[in-house]
Amino acid sequence: MSQDIEGIAKRVRASFERQALMSLIGARLVSVGRGAVDIELGFRHDLTQQRGVLHAGVLTSILDSACGYAALTMMPENADVVSVEFKVNLLRPADGDGFAAEGRVLKAGRTLTVVRGDAYASSAQGRTLVATMLATMMRIKFEDHS
Amino acid sequence: MSQDIEGIAKRVRASFERQALMSLIGARLVSVGRGAVDIELGFRHDLTQQRGVLHAGVLTSILDSACGYAALTMMPENADVVSVEFKVNLLRPADGDGFAAEGRVLKAGRTLTVVRGDAYASSAQGRTLVATMLATMMRIKFEDHS
Amino acid sequence: MSQDIEGIAKRVRASFERQALMSLIGARLVSVGRGAVDIELGFRHDLTQQRGVLHAGVLTSILDSACGYAALTMMPENADVVSVEFKVNLLRPADGDGFAAEGRVLKAGRTLTVVRGDAYASSAQGRTLVATMLATMMRIKFEDHS
Amino acid sequence: MSQDIEGIAKRVRASFERQALMSLIGARLVSVGRGAVDIELGFRHDLTQQRGVLHAGVLTSILDSACGYAALTMMPENADVVSVEFKVNLLRPADGDGFAAEGRVLKAGRTLTVVRGDAYASSAQGRTLVATMLATMMRIKFEDHS
Repeated sequence: MSQDIEGIAKRVRASFERQALMSLIGARLVSVGRGAVDIELGFRHDLTQQRGVLHAGVLTSILDSACGYAALTMMPENADVVSVEFKVNLLRPADGDGFAAEGRVLKAGRTLTVVRGDAYASSAQGRTLVATMLATMMRIKFEDHS
Repeated sequence: MSQDIEGIAKRVRASFERQALMSLIGARLVSVGRGAVDIELGFRHDLTQQRGVLHAGVLTSILDSACGYAALTMMPENADVVSVEFKVNLLRPADGDGFAAEGRVLKAGRTLTVVRGDAYASSAQGRTLVATMLATMMRIKFEDHS
Repeated sequence: MSQDIEGIAKRVRASFERQALMSLIGARLVSVGRGAVDIELGFRHDLTQQRGVLHAGVLTSILDSACGYAALTMMPENADVVSVEFKVNLLRPADGDGFAAEGRVLKAGRTLTVVRGDAYASSAQGRTLVATMLATMMRIKFEDHS
Repeated sequence: MSQDIEGIAKRVRASFERQALMSLIGARLVSVGRGAVDIELGFRHDLTQQRGVLHAGVLTSILDSACGYAALTMMPENADVVSVEFKVNLLRPADGDGFAAEGRVLKAGRTLTVVRGDAYASSAQGRTLVATMLATMMRIKFEDHS
């Protein structure tokens, strides 16, 4: 836990770049702090469900990555993180020009870390909470997959 | 509820085709029965997380669509469906050549329908349960978004 | 929604007194505000699990009631509330002399209300977050069950 | 994992008897198999919510114990089990003379075990599924708390 935040952020960025899905959907890692990671995404028609708003699976994808990386910032250097489980409540239609997923660690443990994630939609009308995640992340041994 | 299953399947297929995300990730609607919908997906590198296996958000996307459409098969013709919330447990790494998400209605109600979804990975070694979802779906009024 | 907070609090107290389980476990309704309800409980040996700390089911009981009543404060006078579903993460052993469950409404809707609940254990060492709930509550018609 | 089922059942029964809450609410351990534990409960007015049916927290208590002990049957002799998290969907009012909670292991791992639990209400009209749980249980070291 004695790593400096630059080292942590570098490690998170390297891992995020290996998440090919984030590139497919156009997600960007915009902020990495200790226990706090933010990801953003612009609206694209090819990410929608049958009613023309963002598919819940896309919101979940950026929430899961934000929560997983928030957990990773609390772990030692030789660790990687996998999702054990998460629950998502969809609060409002994900209708907007842009979206942000904010992962915040609630409780960091040796093996398991519990993280809350909030997803917002932005438009000319402002910023609205559209979904919230409660997730359990597990520390595993890092192996080089590059 | 007096609709024939052909009418229901047609309605589900039309809605699935409007889910642009399903097309982006290459998901196919393979089976529609009353209270039971199956979706399949082939492995693609651009759907992976940092360890090279399917991102949990992609599994969630096909599980959510399978569960939502399973719920829709129990609703009247003028209904549409939205996800209220879901929980996903990731049981094993989603490592395989192909994936299937199977949504099965547990309890259909007038407003809310509870659905279980199981996701499997297939490879030369066989078929393995990799994730399970428990979801709440809500009936809303259908509006033409085409 | 034009009810005054005294009327709301009175309605919540009357309903809480009909929850026989709250009396069995010794739970007390300590605070009712709009979208915010707190319940407290003292430690008792007969509420424990095999390791001598509060059973997760007891924590869930006070969290569920706190979240349900927080939702009820946002509903009209002729409404009652039932739990659709909830998820609880147990963050630390529920070890303490007293416990508090705090329900806070995240999003109030006409039919469904989403509520977050936090449970704390108190001891001479201070107050610790031991569990967190994310719940969906549904408005139903009030019927007199007294 | 080479323990015989009698040894496992004996261990589960000893732990269940230390769960003072089970005694308070009148719950009985009725069946222990490998990966499968059933608990029963009779209706009592002092276990109800405001509408006169079983409180969701009581259903959760027996579901959590059934799921936890189902997980314990898959663990070595020197292990104890704690709940990491669970999600419960309340499908119908828990209205009946008696209730049963059935925990069934979905996936047993070295550290984490995922368990599904179903709760039924019984009356003269028959047996109805009233709630379903999806839970994550963690293996910890057994310490003698007797």
